[in-house]
Amino acid sequence: MNEFGTRYRIGIFGTSHGPCVGAKVEGCPAGSRISESVIQAELDRRSPGKGTVTSPRRERDRLEIISGIRNGKATGGPIVGLIRNLDTDSSAYDAFLRVPRPGHADLPAMVKYGGHHDHRGGGQFSGRMTAGLVIGGAIARQVLEKKGVSLLAQTVQIGGVILRKEVPLSVAERTVRTSAVGCADRATGDRMAQEIAEAHEAKDSVGGVIRCSIIGLPVGVGEPFFGSIESVMAAMMFSIPGVKGVEFGSGFRAAAMKGSEHNDPFAVKDGRIVTKTNNAGGILGGLSTGMPVEFRVAFKPTSSIARPQLSVDVIDKKPVELQIKGRHDPCIVPRAVPVVENSAAAVVLDLMLQGGFF
Amino acid sequence: MNEFGTRYRIGIFGTSHGPCVGAKVEGCPAGSRISESVIQAELDRRSPGKGTVTSPRRERDRLEIISGIRNGKATGGPIVGLIRNLDTDSSAYDAFLRVPRPGHADLPAMVKYGGHHDHRGGGQFSGRMTAGLVIGGAIARQVLEKKGVSLLAQTVQIGGVILRKEVPLSVAERTVRTSAVGCADRATGDRMAQEIAEAHEAKDSVGGVIRCSIIGLPVGVGEPFFGSIESVMAAMMFSIPGVKGVEFGSGFRAAAMKGSEHNDPFAVKDGRIVTKTNNAGGILGGLSTGMPVEFRVAFKPTSSIARPQLSVDVIDKKPVELQIKGRHDPCIVPRAVPVVENSAAAVVLDLMLQGGFF
Amino acid sequence: MNEFGTRYRIGIFGTSHGPCVGAKVEGCPAGSRISESVIQAELDRRSPGKGTVTSPRRERDRLEIISGIRNGKATGGPIVGLIRNLDTDSSAYDAFLRVPRPGHADLPAMVKYGGHHDHRGGGQFSGRMTAGLVIGGAIARQVLEKKGVSLLAQTVQIGGVILRKEVPLSVAERTVRTSAVGCADRATGDRMAQEIAEAHEAKDSVGGVIRCSIIGLPVGVGEPFFGSIESVMAAMMFSIPGVKGVEFGSGFRAAAMKGSEHNDPFAVKDGRIVTKTNNAGGILGGLSTGMPVEFRVAFKPTSSIARPQLSVDVIDKKPVELQIKGRHDPCIVPRAVPVVENSAAAVVLDLMLQGGFF
Amino acid sequence: MNEFGTRYRIGIFGTSHGPCVGAKVEGCPAGSRISESVIQAELDRRSPGKGTVTSPRRERDRLEIISGIRNGKATGGPIVGLIRNLDTDSSAYDAFLRVPRPGHADLPAMVKYGGHHDHRGGGQFSGRMTAGLVIGGAIARQVLEKKGVSLLAQTVQIGGVILRKEVPLSVAERTVRTSAVGCADRATGDRMAQEIAEAHEAKDSVGGVIRCSIIGLPVGVGEPFFGSIESVMAAMMFSIPGVKGVEFGSGFRAAAMKGSEHNDPFAVKDGRIVTKTNNAGGILGGLSTGMPVEFRVAFKPTSSIARPQLSVDVIDKKPVELQIKGRHDPCIVPRAVPVVENSAAAVVLDLMLQGGFF
Repeated sequence: MNEFGTRYRIGIFGTSHGPCVGAKVEGCPAGSRISESVIQAELDRRSPGKGTVTSPRRERDRLEIISGIRNGKATGGPIVGLIRNLDTDSSAYDAFLRVPRPGHADLPAMVKYGGHHDHRGGGQFSGRMTAGLVIGGAIARQVLEKKGVSLLAQTVQIGGVILRKEVPLSVAERTVRTSAVGCADRATGDRMAQEIAEAHEAKDSVGGVIRCSIIGLPVGVGEPFFGSIESVMAAMMFSIPGVKGVEFGSGFRAAAMKGSEHNDPFAVKDGRIVTKTNNAGGILGGLSTGMPVEFRVAFKPTSSIARPQLSVDVIDKKPVELQIKGRHDPCIVPRAVPVVENSAAAVVLDLMLQGGFF
Repeated sequence: MNEFGTRYRIGIFGTSHGPCVGAKVEGCPAGSRISESVIQAELDRRSPGKGTVTSPRRERDRLEIISGIRNGKATGGPIVGLIRNLDTDSSAYDAFLRVPRPGHADLPAMVKYGGHHDHRGGGQFSGRMTAGLVIGGAIARQVLEKKGVSLLAQTVQIGGVILRKEVPLSVAERTVRTSAVGCADRATGDRMAQEIAEAHEAKDSVGGVIRCSIIGLPVGVGEPFFGSIESVMAAMMFSIPGVKGVEFGSGFRAAAMKGSEHNDPFAVKDGRIVTKTNNAGGILGGLSTGMPVEFRVAFKPTSSIARPQLSVDVIDKKPVELQIKGRHDPCIVPRAVPVVENSAAAVVLDLMLQGGFF
Repeated sequence: MNEFGTRYRIGIFGTSHGPCVGAKVEGCPAGSRISESVIQAELDRRSPGKGTVTSPRRERDRLEIISGIRNGKATGGPIVGLIRNLDTDSSAYDAFLRVPRPGHADLPAMVKYGGHHDHRGGGQFSGRMTAGLVIGGAIARQVLEKKGVSLLAQTVQIGGVILRKEVPLSVAERTVRTSAVGCADRATGDRMAQEIAEAHEAKDSVGGVIRCSIIGLPVGVGEPFFGSIESVMAAMMFSIPGVKGVEFGSGFRAAAMKGSEHNDPFAVKDGRIVTKTNNAGGILGGLSTGMPVEFRVAFKPTSSIARPQLSVDVIDKKPVELQIKGRHDPCIVPRAVPVVENSAAAVVLDLMLQGGFF
Repeated sequence: MNEFGTRYRIGIFGTSHGPCVGAKVEGCPAGSRISESVIQAELDRRSPGKGTVTSPRRERDRLEIISGIRNGKATGGPIVGLIRNLDTDSSAYDAFLRVPRPGHADLPAMVKYGGHHDHRGGGQFSGRMTAGLVIGGAIARQVLEKKGVSLLAQTVQIGGVILRKEVPLSVAERTVRTSAVGCADRATGDRMAQEIAEAHEAKDSVGGVIRCSIIGLPVGVGEPFFGSIESVMAAMMFSIPGVKGVEFGSGFRAAAMKGSEHNDPFAVKDGRIVTKTNNAGGILGGLSTGMPVEFRVAFKPTSSIARPQLSVDVIDKKPVELQIKGRHDPCIVPRAVPVVENSAAAVVLDLMLQGGFF
């Protein structure tokens, strides 16, 4: 139903080349201070044109709030924010109804909607829809900040370049924002940018991994089983186009570990119970432990590439060589960093409101 | 809220050492043939005592259906199935309220419920609650089978032992069921059993990875964004205790791939449009493509181990060496195979019902 | 989906002549004191055999709690309570699949479920299912009482006998419980019992009206529009079989009133803002005003009567005279009093939890 | 959460004097023909300025669709429609924060939102929010019409004037639309208009009753208990500001009826099973019977009247005489007719989609 969350709920609407994209947000506590310029800044981070390689879309995403915020505060009613779509050229897309692009939703969408969907620019399957997540999340973050909860997403892998250095979160907070690729380490970030540039040069694309850390969560947020932090967070992360994997704490490495290695021993630090390691990723039994919540999100390489690709004509059922024209974004990972960060905020706020932590 | 799904919805209830564990299932189409013995067989697969290493619990999980099935058919009303808990010894658990077990939910649950939760045997955080998922899923599978949809979960990694051989699904269907560890290849399965035995010997435990394949899904199941197959499936998978990671198709490997490598080229086979590779894991834009849906689930090593571990006394805030008595299951992965398989069935049925594929 | 509520949610299951009827309750705050004997007492009020005229069902409804309460307190997990069905004779019901009873769900249920539903004793359409509402509501009431919120339902009309006397709620609290028909005034109650006896004599049945009052609600409970107290309460009330109308405060009389008459003037009493009249029924804009919430629920006469009635044979499409055998309850209103009272409690608790009044 | 429905879901947003009011609609089947001018016509029916007495708001409500409709067809994504608020004068409303208007939500809203809500023009409690219901409902009606389901709402009472004549629905369909007060009988309509004019003259207001009929529903729409047509429909109706009562079929009159009178006898007509009377209002066991669904909705007199009224100063806790300035609508019932009609359509579409009748 294009909606996510229970107490704090984001609904996204619009399509890539329709009149607008936007979000409806329910559950923001009345009286919360919400700065529209903070939301705008997050939208700018997500926008095409960021990073080393410019992307085809040129307009700035200008936020318009049409409900729910008055005098810089939430009214308690639904918040609706939208961005008008300008500068769209949909001429190329009709062809994909007949010859679907590999790696895109063209084919199953065609079957599902019988051709009635708005396919222009990818329609509701477009990465552009994540602007709605950023609007909803940037509101959530402002509410969370007042409660002492902060979030940081960072690029830890682009193609073959992996951030191996452990940069303290306090440092990363500063460096990630100034890095063109969202990497906490400058040298690694430069190599990532190089990786992207090379892919671009080769008319190809690369994937990557984003790590997200949530600091300051009280103990006991989340619910057992279906309301576990992992369940709800993963559901949100996998709604972002291009995500292929999500892991918490030790993640897939846990499979090869022994229990004696993996169990995080408890200790007391400054009068607070902590764990010495954080293989749990800050979550036990689906509930927050008080340690930082840590997870990683794998993105596939951008599907739209300039190279010729093999497809089929769905009417003739004949093979066709397809060449997608226009300018392509060779790596969406840098632009996905604020999407991960903000949509994670929405999940956390939802879980906290559900559990009565407000 | 201990419930999962919209059109087909499973609610689990009970606790590990309370009167029973069970499931309430809504949305099973009236008139569907549901065999109770098929559900019982799946519960037996999940049961302690299966596999090479016996686990502490001895009773058989005896299914009792108290609502919604009559004369072997669904009535259209809620189906409720339960299993009485027998043979429980809760004497050890009070101690964990004061000295939490590393890797368990003891500490955050204590904080969350103020000590009012049923902590015996892990209460609602116990892996035993997955019996409810198996009940709900085994019902879903029977409905799906009539529609030509089948599911297969298999163990592909236990600790350091990884199944590298590609066993065709048609073969695996037979071999997995007869393997003590749920592995499609006999030799690898033997080494996995050995890995578990060694962990047991060392009073330790090991993790693993389960692969799940869904065959026969029509094109277009799922919804964009929040209703994507990945989102809903991952939410279900991460509700299973011990899961640390979920990936679809190429998964985390996608991060290092080029778009030209990752995009699955379309082709025509027997008059049907297929893809030559399946990096997408059978899903594009959140929708099924008609190729097998493929995902992998990483489990951490069992938290309960016989070795002494470091914990703290939460009253004194002093370090304590904790030794958990009783018999421990050194690897839950083999028993998790039917849990993954059946709970995945519930997700698929829910999505199909939502999308009007029935 | 057989479930009601968001934060406090009741799911009912079972069928009239199946193994049991019961309820699953989610959202009861961990640590709440819940007495099983209080729930049992409410079930006894609802039970056949109460009132002046005995009804056909003889067994006592014995509550069994199988999840969620431990040592007299809610654990925070789902509460499941059930009542085994004993003493059922389903032999008569097969005939109604072919010749539907007037005023019953036989015909539309047959069409809807293709005959696969459990039609015995009315199946899931039976008034017996309201036992689940009473279980869920009796739990809610105990939680509300601790918060100073109390509820009182009373019979104010049976057939042509209308309670015209205004009995203060403080008096009614005592007298209603001891009245065989749930009437606050003894003389009127006697005439109501007479009305029922006469209907029984005539092999007929009568309807009635129940009034429900909720005292002690804080100001501001409820939400505008779809979450209004009226919306949620009416949805619950209309789920009770046999309900034909629901009105709040002035109700249908409001249509003939002038605004200057209907608007309740504000006043200050003991330092608190009150209204001089309560045409609003304690609700403005969907929110509680702090005055008692007042509503009335109209029940139709029981559908099962001993008189011969006109029906049709659905196969032959021929008229048939139908005579329903067995003993019939000539008026369900007295037994519906605790159903209204307790299910209203569930609604109020749900709204209070949603709005953070706990 | 300002949302209604499950498969077909309307969310309303905005406030009376904020930038806009609007609706987000989910679940409209892809490819459905949706005419924007039909929606606009329904908005015009709801608009101030209709009927015998002009109301204070002057602007036309101009519909703008920003998502979900393309080339006159639903795309399958969320539909978002909005109306900009023009011509608003909010100067008077600050006073009501201190001196609440009798019959309005001012006082409980103040307490609930701590003054952070948008109180101007009644904010989200304003009757103007029903424009969102009309948008959502007018879309639903167009989908229903293709399925042969039609709806008709008509004014059957204004103050003391009651429509006693039974006007056949086929006639009423034409006459209601041309009546200034939405009455099917011209003479009665004239007297209703007179009743409103007199109330206006007296600086007062009057209430009324709207009857709604739904024709062409297949047998078996709805669910037992919480999903009964009555439950869902009443929940929607009671979300409309000013509604005090809802009854189906015989309604409150049923309380005084005998079972032998009330039970609708079955008969065969033109090979179809019908009932000879329709006390059931077309619903048995919560399910449609194939007879017209009939219900009545009671509205209180408009709260805003020009007469001086008694209120209190909430700071001083002193009585205050309040005079509400500006022009007032002496009866909202005529304008509520399309609101009832269209929101009922949304409920019906939702239930039909849930039950697989599409």
